[in-house]
Amino acid sequence: MVSSTPGLIGLDWGTTNLRAYLLGEGGRVLDTATAAAGVMGVAEGGFGAALRSATGEWKARWPALNSLACGMVGSRQGWVEAPYVSCPAGIEELARGLATTPGGELLIVPGAARQGERPDVMRGEETQVAGWLTLHPGRAGRARLVLPGTHSKWVEVEDGRITGFTTYMTGEVFGVLRAHSILGRIAEGPRPSEAEARGAFARGVEAVRDGGHAAPLLFSARSLVLTGGLRAELALDYLSGLLIGEELVCALAAGGRELALIGDPALCGRYVQALSLLGLEGVPVVTDAEATAAGLWHIALRAGLLRETTEPSA
Amino acid sequence: MVSSTPGLIGLDWGTTNLRAYLLGEGGRVLDTATAAAGVMGVAEGGFGAALRSATGEWKARWPALNSLACGMVGSRQGWVEAPYVSCPAGIEELARGLATTPGGELLIVPGAARQGERPDVMRGEETQVAGWLTLHPGRAGRARLVLPGTHSKWVEVEDGRITGFTTYMTGEVFGVLRAHSILGRIAEGPRPSEAEARGAFARGVEAVRDGGHAAPLLFSARSLVLTGGLRAELALDYLSGLLIGEELVCALAAGGRELALIGDPALCGRYVQALSLLGLEGVPVVTDAEATAAGLWHIALRAGLLRETTEPSA
Repeated sequence: MVSSTPGLIGLDWGTTNLRAYLLGEGGRVLDTATAAAGVMGVAEGGFGAALRSATGEWKARWPALNSLACGMVGSRQGWVEAPYVSCPAGIEELARGLATTPGGELLIVPGAARQGERPDVMRGEETQVAGWLTLHPGRAGRARLVLPGTHSKWVEVEDGRITGFTTYMTGEVFGVLRAHSILGRIAEGPRPSEAEARGAFARGVEAVRDGGHAAPLLFSARSLVLTGGLRAELALDYLSGLLIGEELVCALAAGGRELALIGDPALCGRYVQALSLLGLEGVPVVTDAEATAAGLWHIALRAGLLRETTEPSA
Repeated sequence: MVSSTPGLIGLDWGTTNLRAYLLGEGGRVLDTATAAAGVMGVAEGGFGAALRSATGEWKARWPALNSLACGMVGSRQGWVEAPYVSCPAGIEELARGLATTPGGELLIVPGAARQGERPDVMRGEETQVAGWLTLHPGRAGRARLVLPGTHSKWVEVEDGRITGFTTYMTGEVFGVLRAHSILGRIAEGPRPSEAEARGAFARGVEAVRDGGHAAPLLFSARSLVLTGGLRAELALDYLSGLLIGEELVCALAAGGRELALIGDPALCGRYVQALSLLGLEGVPVVTDAEATAAGLWHIALRAGLLRETTEPSA
């Protein structure tokens, strides 16, 4: 049930999932739809059908609504490539760089690229950062945003624009070690309590904090279990602490002021815990869904894509 | 053809392979046999058959020979568990800790364990270190040995004994990232020349040398390819440089004097190159096969297992 008039259909269209939002004033989420129609799962030529399947009911009711997506749908492997916008990149640059699918069904936010000796790229996170900026206008002058995930991004913001960022593959490294390494194979037993998991995670963070590197400690997730110093079912929480701890130790070497988190609430909770163990208390969190919705709304606003709708009489 | 009388059958019996050596005076390799009969591939109760299949001809010719193995065959998942010997561990301690299979067919060298807040363990490498010590008696007083591999070991030696060691999962991390991560998926194209591969490897080592950590650089193996700064077929050599570079940066923080390498010649070549980029020129290399053979021979000598054999008349 929709309780306000919608102005935009927003989509977070990534590698493995499609999340659609019916958005009202300010980017408020009026309705949602999700589909297992990520870029890797849609066959050549199937993007239009996937879009209509997820948003067809909304379009039938409000045909004037535009659809704006962010994420891997704008990559070379996606529907239409939306070339990266170079830093500094803010809402204005993103709105100017929108790509359009051949039939005009969907507009796509470009990713952002940082130049340098080792360039870096993002797709989807630029929209979350844009959303965070509109949610915290007073902090848009200077901030450092952390977007934890498969590929964590640490983003520098100055004067409302992304000026630089670095990617950490923390989530993907954890995932492949859990699924395919000896560390995943030893981790068995009943699921520990949240307090036990937090304790093992903290032990990993503290070990990296004290030693500075995860590499000499990874094998201890196994040797501690072998020698009775860690219960097997806690090995993965300890490993997660080692890897997230290393990400934080590396990234905080460049300064930790004005920090804020954007992401999945449970994962952000782990980062808040780890940051606290490193002396940074109370780092605020915005959920990725909230930031994406606000970002899509404000990019659409800047691009003139918002529509005034009225409830159909039927 | 065997040109000298053998005194021992030595076995390097690991997770995925079984390598058998017919050994003569001083640990000289007179003949070899290999089988895809690693500990993970042998069914419950099948160890005896695997041993006889690999060494049966030698035993038929010289029935008096003892068989001595090192490696994962002495782990809990192996034939018979040979409990870890605590550091400091030298040839004498290893010889005293031999385990024997129920029928007496095989003796097994124990692994070594280091105590501490985060204990560490090895199985197989202790025998290679023992062998290196007999090959370099003048350096047994104080040395630091690097055994690169799936689980690289950095081993401290004092007065002919292993006094401490640290495991780096460098090879396994590289393997799972190559096989299962986005970094492996982008690495395609014709196999580069050795000079090109060395160049990309060096670039990875230098990046970690200059920055201190691999974590903020892993994703650059992808972003450099995406932005034209690295050819796709060189991404894995660059990644290898990042990971080996980080192992070296971490381990050398504890000092780099008296370093020597034991291992596969090609992999040791990469470590020699990386060490040179970090300012340590000409680190000497002993092959793992040579070190294992010498180690098994001298442990057997100390345990009274060597046999004098004569050529049978037939």
